[in-house]
This record gives sequence, C-alpha cells and structure tokens, in this order.
Amino acid sequence: MEITNAERARILVHALPYIQKYNGKIIVVKYGGNAMVNEELKKSVARDVILLNLIGVKVVLVHGGGPEITEMLSKIGKESEFVNGLRVTDSETIDVVQMVLAGKINKSLVNLIECSGGSAVGLSGVDGHMIKACTKDERLGFVGRITSVNPKPILDVIDKGYIPVISTLGCDECGNVYNINADTAAAKIAAALKAESLISLTDTPGILMDKNDASTLISHITVCETDELIKSGIISDGMIPKVECCVNAIAEGVRKVFIIDGRIPHSILIETLTDEGIGTMFEEG
Amino acid sequence: MEITNAERARILVHALPYIQKYNGKIIVVKYGGNAMVNEELKKSVARDVILLNLIGVKVVLVHGGGPEITEMLSKIGKESEFVNGLRVTDSETIDVVQMVLAGKINKSLVNLIECSGGSAVGLSGVDGHMIKACTKDERLGFVGRITSVNPKPILDVIDKGYIPVISTLGCDECGNVYNINADTAAAKIAAALKAESLISLTDTPGILMDKNDASTLISHITVCETDELIKSGIISDGMIPKVECCVNAIAEGVRKVFIIDGRIPHSILIETLTDEGIGTMFEEG
Amino acid sequence: MEITNAERARILVHALPYIQKYNGKIIVVKYGGNAMVNEELKKSVARDVILLNLIGVKVVLVHGGGPEITEMLSKIGKESEFVNGLRVTDSETIDVVQMVLAGKINKSLVNLIECSGGSAVGLSGVDGHMIKACTKDERLGFVGRITSVNPKPILDVIDKGYIPVISTLGCDECGNVYNINADTAAAKIAAALKAESLISLTDTPGILMDKNDASTLISHITVCETDELIKSGIISDGMIPKVECCVNAIAEGVRKVFIIDGRIPHSILIETLTDEGIGTMFEEG
Amino acid sequence: MEITNAERARILVHALPYIQKYNGKIIVVKYGGNAMVNEELKKSVARDVILLNLIGVKVVLVHGGGPEITEMLSKIGKESEFVNGLRVTDSETIDVVQMVLAGKINKSLVNLIECSGGSAVGLSGVDGHMIKACTKDERLGFVGRITSVNPKPILDVIDKGYIPVISTLGCDECGNVYNINADTAAAKIAAALKAESLISLTDTPGILMDKNDASTLISHITVCETDELIKSGIISDGMIPKVECCVNAIAEGVRKVFIIDGRIPHSILIETLTDEGIGTMFEEG
Amino acid sequence: MEITNAERARILVHALPYIQKYNGKIIVVKYGGNAMVNEELKKSVARDVILLNLIGVKVVLVHGGGPEITEMLSKIGKESEFVNGLRVTDSETIDVVQMVLAGKINKSLVNLIECSGGSAVGLSGVDGHMIKACTKDERLGFVGRITSVNPKPILDVIDKGYIPVISTLGCDECGNVYNINADTAAAKIAAALKAESLISLTDTPGILMDKNDASTLISHITVCETDELIKSGIISDGMIPKVECCVNAIAEGVRKVFIIDGRIPHSILIETLTDEGIGTMFEEG
Amino acid sequence: MEITNAERARILVHALPYIQKYNGKIIVVKYGGNAMVNEELKKSVARDVILLNLIGVKVVLVHGGGPEITEMLSKIGKESEFVNGLRVTDSETIDVVQMVLAGKINKSLVNLIECSGGSAVGLSGVDGHMIKACTKDERLGFVGRITSVNPKPILDVIDKGYIPVISTLGCDECGNVYNINADTAAAKIAAALKAESLISLTDTPGILMDKNDASTLISHITVCETDELIKSGIISDGMIPKVECCVNAIAEGVRKVFIIDGRIPHSILIETLTDEGIGTMFEEG
Repeated sequence: MEITNAERARILVHALPYIQKYNGKIIVVKYGGNAMVNEELKKSVARDVILLNLIGVKVVLVHGGGPEITEMLSKIGKESEFVNGLRVTDSETIDVVQMVLAGKINKSLVNLIECSGGSAVGLSGVDGHMIKACTKDERLGFVGRITSVNPKPILDVIDKGYIPVISTLGCDECGNVYNINADTAAAKIAAALKAESLISLTDTPGILMDKNDASTLISHITVCETDELIKSGIISDGMIPKVECCVNAIAEGVRKVFIIDGRIPHSILIETLTDEGIGTMFEEG
Repeated sequence: MEITNAERARILVHALPYIQKYNGKIIVVKYGGNAMVNEELKKSVARDVILLNLIGVKVVLVHGGGPEITEMLSKIGKESEFVNGLRVTDSETIDVVQMVLAGKINKSLVNLIECSGGSAVGLSGVDGHMIKACTKDERLGFVGRITSVNPKPILDVIDKGYIPVISTLGCDECGNVYNINADTAAAKIAAALKAESLISLTDTPGILMDKNDASTLISHITVCETDELIKSGIISDGMIPKVECCVNAIAEGVRKVFIIDGRIPHSILIETLTDEGIGTMFEEG
Repeated sequence: MEITNAERARILVHALPYIQKYNGKIIVVKYGGNAMVNEELKKSVARDVILLNLIGVKVVLVHGGGPEITEMLSKIGKESEFVNGLRVTDSETIDVVQMVLAGKINKSLVNLIECSGGSAVGLSGVDGHMIKACTKDERLGFVGRITSVNPKPILDVIDKGYIPVISTLGCDECGNVYNINADTAAAKIAAALKAESLISLTDTPGILMDKNDASTLISHITVCETDELIKSGIISDGMIPKVECCVNAIAEGVRKVFIIDGRIPHSILIETLTDEGIGTMFEEG
Repeated sequence: MEITNAERARILVHALPYIQKYNGKIIVVKYGGNAMVNEELKKSVARDVILLNLIGVKVVLVHGGGPEITEMLSKIGKESEFVNGLRVTDSETIDVVQMVLAGKINKSLVNLIECSGGSAVGLSGVDGHMIKACTKDERLGFVGRITSVNPKPILDVIDKGYIPVISTLGCDECGNVYNINADTAAAKIAAALKAESLISLTDTPGILMDKNDASTLISHITVCETDELIKSGIISDGMIPKVECCVNAIAEGVRKVFIIDGRIPHSILIETLTDEGIGTMFEEG
Repeated sequence: MEITNAERARILVHALPYIQKYNGKIIVVKYGGNAMVNEELKKSVARDVILLNLIGVKVVLVHGGGPEITEMLSKIGKESEFVNGLRVTDSETIDVVQMVLAGKINKSLVNLIECSGGSAVGLSGVDGHMIKACTKDERLGFVGRITSVNPKPILDVIDKGYIPVISTLGCDECGNVYNINADTAAAKIAAALKAESLISLTDTPGILMDKNDASTLISHITVCETDELIKSGIISDGMIPKVECCVNAIAEGVRKVFIIDGRIPHSILIETLTDEGIGTMFEEG
Repeated sequence: MEITNAERARILVHALPYIQKYNGKIIVVKYGGNAMVNEELKKSVARDVILLNLIGVKVVLVHGGGPEITEMLSKIGKESEFVNGLRVTDSETIDVVQMVLAGKINKSLVNLIECSGGSAVGLSGVDGHMIKACTKDERLGFVGRITSVNPKPILDVIDKGYIPVISTLGCDECGNVYNINADTAAAKIAAALKAESLISLTDTPGILMDKNDASTLISHITVCETDELIKSGIISDGMIPKVECCVNAIAEGVRKVFIIDGRIPHSILIETLTDEGIGTMFEEG
C-alpha cells in the first residue's frame, strides 16, 4: 500500500489534538521486555521518545535489566543463593547489577538516542542520590525498597535540554547500593515528577480476560476493579506487582497509567498520539 | 483505504528528521489565493500552522487581500482611477484597504487559529511602525514601497507564545498608510527575521515549463536560472513579480524559498515535513 | 501670558507627587466621544498617553467606534433592523463592525501614537481570544455580553514596551465575533488588569446636579449614592449605563474610576498629574 | 499670576520630547556651590533629581564639600600647611575630609532625597574601591589624582532602583584615602558611565564674555574654542580647571557637558526638560 | 611548632561540615570593642569576613563607634549634657555621630576589607531609609529607638556581590538622624534578614559565672535562663542590654546568637568553622 | 601534637589568597593510581573535591580504570589479543570497559561524594555525545582517538550545582563506543573547558631527576624543557605519555598543569590551597 504525502500530512494533522494535550507535560516510560532486546524495537522506542521530545513532551525513560544481569552473573560464574525463590543480592552481585544497569544498558540507550538525533543524559538513582532506598528483606541483601525519590536531578537534566535515561539503582546514606525493581521505581519517579502519564512497555497486549486470547483485552480498569481482577485470578503471577505499581502511581497523583505492548513498533506513539488505546489504561475510581 | 494506527505512528516517525531540521527556526508563510477563500483550505492552513508551531517551528503568517478589497470598494460604490492599468489608491481607498486587511482578514485569520486551538495575535505594518514605506509612484497615491522592516514586534509576539498574523500595510513618519504588495512584504519580512524559509501559497503547482501541464513542474531553480526563464517566457505575467520576490528574499539571506500549490490541503506540511517537494524551490547559485 | 522656563520647571516639580502615585500602576482610558473625532483632541490624547507611559504609568487605551460604524453601514447601503430601538447586528453588520473597529480606528490610533513618538500595538478582543463573549439577546444577533477577559495579551504587550490599544470585539469558541459596548469592555478590562484607575472620556463635564449647569458638577460619588442619583433622575439616559460600568469596575477591584470631560485638551493629564479633579470620581462606600 | 491646570498639563506635554530624549540615559550632576548650601535650593535639586529618575533618566549625583571641610578643620583647631597656596592634606586632614564628605554631606543628601520621596544610596570612591587614585604631588600629601574609575558599584546601585549619591574620595591598594577634586571626579565618572550628559552646578550663569554682565553668556562652546577663550582671559581663575574637566569629559565620550547656574531653582530641570539652555554647553568640534 | 602542609590540608577538610552548615546562610557580625581598635584584630576580622564570604556565607558587618565619637566630640570641644548618666545627643552631636560612624569608621572598614581582597559597600541606616527610628526619650535628643528595619538595601548589596558594612544611624520621615545602639541595631537587622546567626564581638570571654574567672564560662544559655542569671547578678551592668538584644534576636527568629571574645584573633572563624564554642551561645527554650 | 582551634582558624585564613585565586575557576582533576584504590585516599579525594566546590571552585573529576577493567576481563575469562604489547579492544572488551568505567567506578565515585556531603552527577563521554572519537589504530579495535570534546554537558551539570564525575568513554556517530586514555581525555576536557588548571594524581612524587630519589623532584618544567628531559631519559616509560598530555593541555590554553603525588592524603588541597607545590608544575615557555 502506497501512502501519499497528502495522506501523510493529514495524519500529522490528526495528531494535533494529542500533541496539544501532552505539550509541556511529563511522560515516564518504563522500558523493558522485548522492546529492550530487539534491535528494531529499540530503534523504534528511541525515535518515539525523540519525536515526543521535539513536540514538547518531556519524556523520561526508566529501565531495568534483569536478563542482562543474569547473563553477566553467569559469565563471571557467580552462583546465587535463593531465599523463597528470590535471588540473594550480595556485595559481588550488586556490583554486577550496578555495572550492567548504569554502565551497559544505560549508556547504550543514551548512545542509541544520540545516534538517532536526540540529546540524552544517563542517570542512575545514585546520581544526586536521587533514589534513596533501604533493605527490603535482610535475607535478600542489597535488594532495595525506595524510601524517597528526589526529582531534582531529573528536572535539571530536562531543563538543560536532554532526555533523561534512568537506571533503577537505589542508595543509602552509608553508600550502599541497592537493586530496585524497575516497575516500582518508574511508578515512584512518575509520582515524584507529578507526571501526566506513566507508560509501561511489556510483552503482553495488556490485561487480558483470557490470557491466551488477545481479543479479550481490557482497555480501561479503575483502581477499584483491580482487587477483584486479582482475586479472580485474571491478573496473576508477574502481572500482579506490575498492576500494583500502576495503582500506586495513580494513588500518588499520576493522571494516567498504561500497560502497553512493547512488541508493537512505535507503541508509545500509537498510545499518545492516536485515538487508539493499544493496551490497558488504569484510572482512578 | 483504511490506515492503521501503526501506520500512523510510522508516518509520524518519518516526519522526525524534518521536525529536527526546522526545530526553533522561523518559517514565513505568504498566505493568499484559494487557500484564503476556500473554507476547508483555510482550516487546513490553520491546522498546519498550529502543528508546526507546536513542534517548535516559529511560523509567521503574512497575508494580503486583493479580492476582498475590490469587493469592499465596489460595495461602497467607489470607482477607482487607473494609471497604466494600476489602481490609484487615494485616501478613501487606503482607508478601505486598512479596514479590510487589518480589520476583516487579519482578525478572521487570528480567530480561525484560536478556534483551532492555537494562540495568535494579529499585527499590521502600522503596529510598532513595523513596515516603513514611501510612495512607489506618485501617480498611484498610497501604494507603498517598503523602506525598512523592523522585526521587533514580530519577535516580541513570538516570544510571548503567539503565532503572529501580519497584514501588509506600510506607514511613514507623517502617519500616511500605504498598501503594500503582500509578496514583497512577505519576502522583506522573511529577510528581516532571517527566516529559514519562505513559503508562498499560490494557485499554481509552481513554475511549469508548460503552463498547461502540471507534470512539467520545475522542482528546483537557482537564482541564476530565473533570468533565463523570464527571458524565455516560461516565467511570465503575474508570476514574474512573485519570482522576483523569491529571488530578493534569497539575496537578503533567507535560506530556502518555495512557491507551492495552496489548493492542495496541508500543502505547507507536505512541503516541510515530508520528502516531497510539492512546488518550486528557489536556491542560491 | 508668557510662562518662563523657571515656571515650567516648577510646574513639572509640582507633578512629582502625582507621578510617584501612579508610577508602575495601570490606568485604563476609555476613549470616545469628541476626543476621538476632533483632530486636535486626538493628538492631545496621544501625547497624554505617551507622557504617562514615559513616566512609568502603564496606560491601556480602550476604544469603541459607534459613529464610524454607522457611517460605514450607510456607505455600503446596509439598512439595519431595530428591536426596541436597538440595532440588530447580523452577520454582514458584525463584519463592518470588525473592519471599522479593528481595521480603521484601532490602527489609526496606533499610527497616531507612533507618529507622536510612542510605541503602540493594536489588539482586539479576538487577538489571543482576549475577550470571550456570548449573545446578549438572541434578537439582537452578534451583540455580545462579556463572559471573561484574559489579561495576558495586554500584559504581554505592555511587558514588551508597547502601549496597548484595544478595540472592543468579543468572540466565542465557535469563531463568532461580537460587538461589545466599549464602556462595559473598558470596565471589565480594568478589572481583569487590577488597574489603579479607569478614566472614561466623555462629552460632558461629569455628573451634573443640573444637566445644564456645568458649575453643578459632583466631584465625588460613592457607589452607594449612585442608586439614589439614578432614582432622582440626576443620572439619566445614556449616562446610566456608563455609571453602572463605573460602579461595576469598583466592585471588581479597580481603585478609582473617573468620568471626565474629553473635550478639554489634556484632560487625562489634568486628572492624573494635577490637584484638579476635572470630572466625577467614583469611590467605594 | 494664576496658572490653570490646563496650562500645567500643556506644559507637561511640552516636556515630552525632552523626556523622550533622555529616557534610559545617564546624567551625571556635579553638585556644588550655593545649591549645596541654601536649604530651598537643596530641596529643589532633590526634587529635580527624583523627577528625572521617575521619568526614566538615570541620575547620578556627585558632590564635593570644600567649605564644610574647612569649617570642620577649623572646629578641631587643625592648622594646615600650604604649598604654593594649596593645602597640604596630612593624615589627620584626610580623616576629616572622609568624615565630612562620606559621613556628613553624603548621608544628608541621601536623607534629603529619601525624605522627598526618592530612594537613594550613598557611595564613596572607597566603596567597592570605585575610585582608584595616587598622590598628585608628594608635597600635598593625600590629594589624589584618579587612576581609574570602576563604574560597577554605581551601575549596581542604579540597577537595584536607587539614585546613587557619590562623595569624591579616592583610595589606593594600600588603604590610603585621597581627597579628589569633585569636578574632576564627576567628569571621570561621567566618562566611565558613558553618560549622555554631565551637568555642573556652579555659582555663575555659565561662561560670560564679560564676567560682570550676565547678558554676555556664551551658550555653546566647542572644545576647540576653549583654548582661545582661556588664552584671551575670558575663561580665567577657578573657571579654568572646571572647563578643563568639561573638555576632558567630552574627549572621553560624554555626549553633552553643561555648566549651569545652580542658584536658579530647578536649573537641572530647566536645562534638561525645556528648550531653554540656561548655562554654557560644551560640544565636540 | 611547625605545621606541615599536610596538617594544614587536614585542618581545611575538618572545616568542611561547618562550611556546609553555613553555606548560603546569613551571619550578622556585631563588630565592636578591642576588635575595632587593635590593628591586628581589625585585619583578623576583615580576613575572617572575606573567608566566610568566599565559602558562601553571606556576612553582614554591623558596627557602632562609641569611643571614636567621644574622641571627636572632645576634639571639637563639645561639652555634653548628661541625663541620668546618659549623654544628651543634640543637633551638633548627632552631626558628629553621623560623620564618625558613616564617614570615618564605616569607610575605613570598607577600605580594610577591599585592601584584604574582599569587595564591600558601606551603608548607613539612612541609605534607602533602611533603619527607621524615633526619639527614645525626649530628654536625650537624637537617641533613637528603632521602629522598623527594611532589609532590602542590605540584600541588594549582597545580591550584587558585596559585603555590606552597616553603621547604625536611624532616621525618620522628617529627615532627623538618630544615634542607635549598635547591639540593638545588629539584633534587629539580624531579625529582619532572618539571619542564621548573630555573632557579637565583645571584650569578654562571654557570660562568666565568676566575672573574674574565665574558666567559669557558660557555653549555652537558654532564653529562659537569662532572667534568673540577671536576677542573681551573674549577668550585670553593661552585659544586661547586650543579653537583652540576644534574647530579642532569638525571639524574632534568629536561629543562633553568640557573644564571643573579639580579643582572640579569628574568633569569628573559630566560632563558625571549628567544633569549639569560644563564647556563650543563646538558644531558644 | 595538639593543634588549637586558634591555630586552625589561622590556617584557614592562610588559605584565603589561594581561595581567592581559584574562586569561580575550573579545575580538572585526573583521578587515578593509588588514590583510586586505597579507601582512605578515596575519601580524602572526595573531601578535597567537596571542599574546593564549596569555596567556589568548579572541580571536574575525570577517571579511567585500567586495573578494574583487567580484573573484570579476567573474571569473565576473556583472553585478550595483543598488538605490539597493546591489548586489542574487541566488541566484548569494550562492553566490559563501558560497564566498569561508566557503571562501577563512575557511580561508586559519585556515591562516595554524595555520602561525604557533596552533590555529584556521573557522566560518560557517551552522555550528550560529549567525547567524539574514532579508531586510533584499526588493529586495536575500539581504542579511540578523541576528535572533539563538547563541554556543554559538563557545564550544564556544574550550572545545576553538581560536581561532574566523568568516565572516559568516547563514541562516534554510528554508535560505536571507544576506550579513551584517561590522561588524554582529562587534558582535552580541561582544554575544552578552558580550565584554570589540570591536576593529575599519580603514584610518583612528580618528575624526578633521579627516579629513585624523591628529593630530586623538579618543581617547575617549562614546555620547552620537556623535550630535553625526554631525550635525556629523565622522563621515561609511562611518564612520557602523561607528560605529553600535560604539554598538550598547556598548548590548548590550560593555564597550569600539575603532576602530583596522589598517595599523599589531601594532595589536591595541598597543591591548591597552600604555598607548597607538592609535585611538578608545567608551564608555558
């Protein structure tokens, strides 16, 4: 199918009300899953973020990096202990986490945005001691629970014209570094920034009534309904903590929270600049 | 033909390099012809201008209004004298010109932009004595030749966040008001603003080798080639002064000058945000 | 009578406390009547406004233009319908109103100030959609009632160093334009700007106990006293709506409101910079 | 003679072009002679300065204080040595100079301006080490020759909204304080500030062809003519150094320099805001 | 004893937490006693103030000048009347006070700071009419009681990068000047500036349990305890009004108030940048 | 040896002229060697940097990390190829370099500064594409030669109040990342920032005439003398490239360049804030 430029222009104009809606607002994108692995999807995210930035949206990219951490740990032959199925993060492990998140993934993402024509600066929760944390469970070591997020370093970086890319390390006053769950961090960061919206890129189409049938996507869920959906098992397993982060973000003042399918190219743009909701949107109520 | 939102997103992303190119730059749009008469085209121009504005382009809209002036003169039963086929602009006529340009067309255009979600302020060459002029030919009365353009009022209006809409009146130190050719004024204003580009909306596809065959469009003309094209009669009649304005604009430092077909919806966006040149582009050389 | 320069200097110094009083404050001048017709008076108003501007007073000029509108309507042979003696403003009429107010009178006034050495920019209620209005009475067509005044465009123009000259058009979200009574608009604008004072130029010496005897001028009226004066017929006819505007302006926070005689040269300066009150001042109470 | 307020307003308007001329410009007033002694004249100067300040002129007041220094020295019984008729300024004397200039005269002047409704801050050449000096003649002790003037403290005080009042002390890197001739200091300060004009208040009507006949006032002198006038004895005695300061100020870029009669009330206003030149104006050429 | 540079560096680093504590805060130093007489101590104070300024503390120096006033009065042979042992400040006396404080001491202090590499501007309570006062006791003449302190001139001077040096004159609307007790003025100034701390340099080690035994220094006193200490005679004579000023400063919001021994070189630095409290600190409670 | 607080204060005051000299200037510290390994020395550097920052010096910390990279490579069992004794940096190796430099060392350093009371943000040459590079030698893979340094991200971070900590990665337009020699990078960064001085922390006392005798330290070397010293073998081996960086930094406008002994605690402070030069200073000439 050939699309004429007249068609293209018309499409740009259709985006106008969406552009007006988000102009000057902050959108936090939780980056993860396939969108962080597949080269094409990575470029697609970078371009979405740059485009939003150019049209006046303040995009903040928050990333974790579970699979790459696991890969690196195995590379150095580190064998992890587990408590209740959760990996114990000892001193050597947190060093690897720090390297992979703040050194590898963060800078690669910054590099990708720069090479696509954007301007980015990478930050971790350690920079400006932005994410303060403490031990979540003493048996798990340096797995952190966020105690506070200082939005100043992020706003400073935005103010100077860069797209902030944030790796979710936490730290405490004694200099300990903690691994922080990226969904939780993104929600807390969105709240601290009083963001207009939080968009979480996942490897599912959103919340499905029937996990195996994409056509059963639930487009809107109110905060109240989530409890019921968890009880009934529709929201289950790994989706539960993600949904809890969404609910918390709304409770702390983020206007709109989305779980969308990061496997679809330009899913961020589709969600923000078209009339199509391509995932599940969480609302107050 | 149905266009999916995925397609839409891809199209937005394709516009990215063009958005980056014009970000923060000034584009002067000479508004005229059918695009100023047809209701659909008017809305299309308003939306184009607002969209460009939102994505960081500083658009300045310059308009004339020949047909509406003629209509108003006939309405009040004013019979004009003519010298060499040019209308003599006496005191009563310039009053009508001022009313129609600065009162009717200017404010209607501002109104249209505001109603489409943009923010606009209308200026005339009299405001801040922005366009200084003197008599072009004493036999023609208040038909003016521009002596200087003060870009400050336009930049002030941009700085405060409005899209400036300019009607092409001139004035002198004694308080006389002059009718100024809108093509000339747009070129001078673009030069005074050190604009990135000047886009002139006309009722032709651009410069055609064969006036009756749109497929003979000349996409690029260097300033040097225009002389030859005028001599050979390819550029003729009413197009000659338009082309001279284009050439002058380039001589005074405007980077790129376009004559495009204002009858095509969203022609401004097509020219600026796609890879299609839909008219004739004038270049130095 | 010869006045020495020593005398002149002394007079300038006498103005000092008045200058100090108004320094940095906003004065809205409702311009109308003879002062808008007589060439000498027009120049006198322009100079007063420029002088006040130079000594640090932020003057805002608001004008209507009834007589010129009537003249233009008759010129185009438009016959108006009347309802209860009020002209019905149909679509063709509002077009003429817009042209005369925003095109002719507004720009002529701007031109006059510029030629007298001041710096002015003309605005209408349409620019920046500054004056929002709706139909006052459906039988009267586009005669508007103000629903809100956005002071931002006026303050922006002041901030950039220009004297704002405002024609009293209103507009709504659908793009309709309305004719707004200039006294009402001036009062609403003064209120929206939190002006120090509102000065209304009229063709009377102020409120007179005996309409035919200028020596019976009432210098001060409290808001409370106006009711009584209207009931007793001392304030009557066309003066009633003017007085109501004054009372409303005070109710909405304008500190001082004056009705002064615009037929006296430099009446604005006399009122603001000397100890003479040359009209009627309205006060709270 | 009774002056009506209409007359007053007309006079204010006559001042308009002069106000426009000086708006935003710096005028340095060298304050001295009778104008610094007579209570009425002092108040007149204070009001002139405040008025000029309010209408947008940046006035800088520079004062000396010879007679009061002499009086104080006699009060403490200090007997001065003289070299070639010039008083030797020893350590005890410069202490008295400092006290009288920076303590008594400076603060009294500041006080007078404040009590008249202006806002003033007193500075000496010691503050911010604004006036750097060295010994003029080793036999005279702490009589200084200016080596440089740093305009920053003066501009800082203006920028914060105060009228700067400056006493003409100098200082060096070792902490020595010097008495500086006030005419010289005013000229150097005017030059350092790139002042529009320097007005020197004296006890004469200006430069007279015949010293005893005020009607022989020379209104304009070019720099070139001064040599001749000195040679011919028309400029003589104490007027010679004053004239030299004027000539130097012009040489260093001050546009206009005046010697005016400080004994005439409001002489500063008469000189700046009327068409009357009441003293002698020095011009380049 | 030789101190190595390694030792020096270590000492600088030890000051780090103190520097961090005071960074960006205002400290008012009441300067008086021996520290204002002894040449070495004067230089020591100047250097302390400059050092604090450089490390980001906003130091305000407030001085009186009793002994020099007395000396000057005796020099001019002025015999003062006394009421209840207090000197009557007549018109001639206040002139001397003004000269000595604002002319001699203030400018000498400014000069000393400038010569030591700092940047200072001297102000008196008359400048910007910063200290408003009225007669304290009609029998004492121009001895003033502060009615208000306007912190703007001090903050303006700090904002422009100078260390403000303030002589404690007061003034009223009529132009009268008053001698103000420097302790009182410093306390009021500290309160008006919402200072972090007020440090008073005296000729005692602080409040002593036994006036003759420096080892009985009371390091901390709460506001409540002062009453008891006055009643019991431990705080007595000239120390009583000093202590009352300290108590008042705390009551008006100054966080910490110190009376320290100005006879110890660099006592200001010792108090602020080391762990040693070298005087008495007053606290709330 | 007990040092009294009086002594401490005196020492702080002795630092005054040095503080004044560096106030507002940029100092680039090349961090490396033992100072980056020993825990005590690391804390000492952090405190030095924070102290300098607080007293108004803009410190930029640049670090490499050779030993930790080697250690990590060995941990993952990576065997490196060597060309002429230089390690070939293949794709897997540069990934490790990026992780160790930007992830481990950079964030640990930021963390250390934050925990010591400073405020820091870590940057790499990838952030804002600050360090542009290309391949130095195709046989060595991703070992980079700097083509340009963009100082904007560093200045932005300083402007927002943070101490920038920089890891010396380079990047190119295609997204390749390069390992950059830290000495070279520090010199280029100092030049791009127009730094006042560049201080390189090493594990030697500086340039020694006799490598084995610390007492033969050369305190000052002019750029001209370095050639001779290299030829004569006094500067040899690993010191040669370090010295070349120093010489280049001076050639590109850095005022003063030092090689100092990072093994001495607080060596940065000793060099900058005392009269002792503890290493070798390179000067123009």
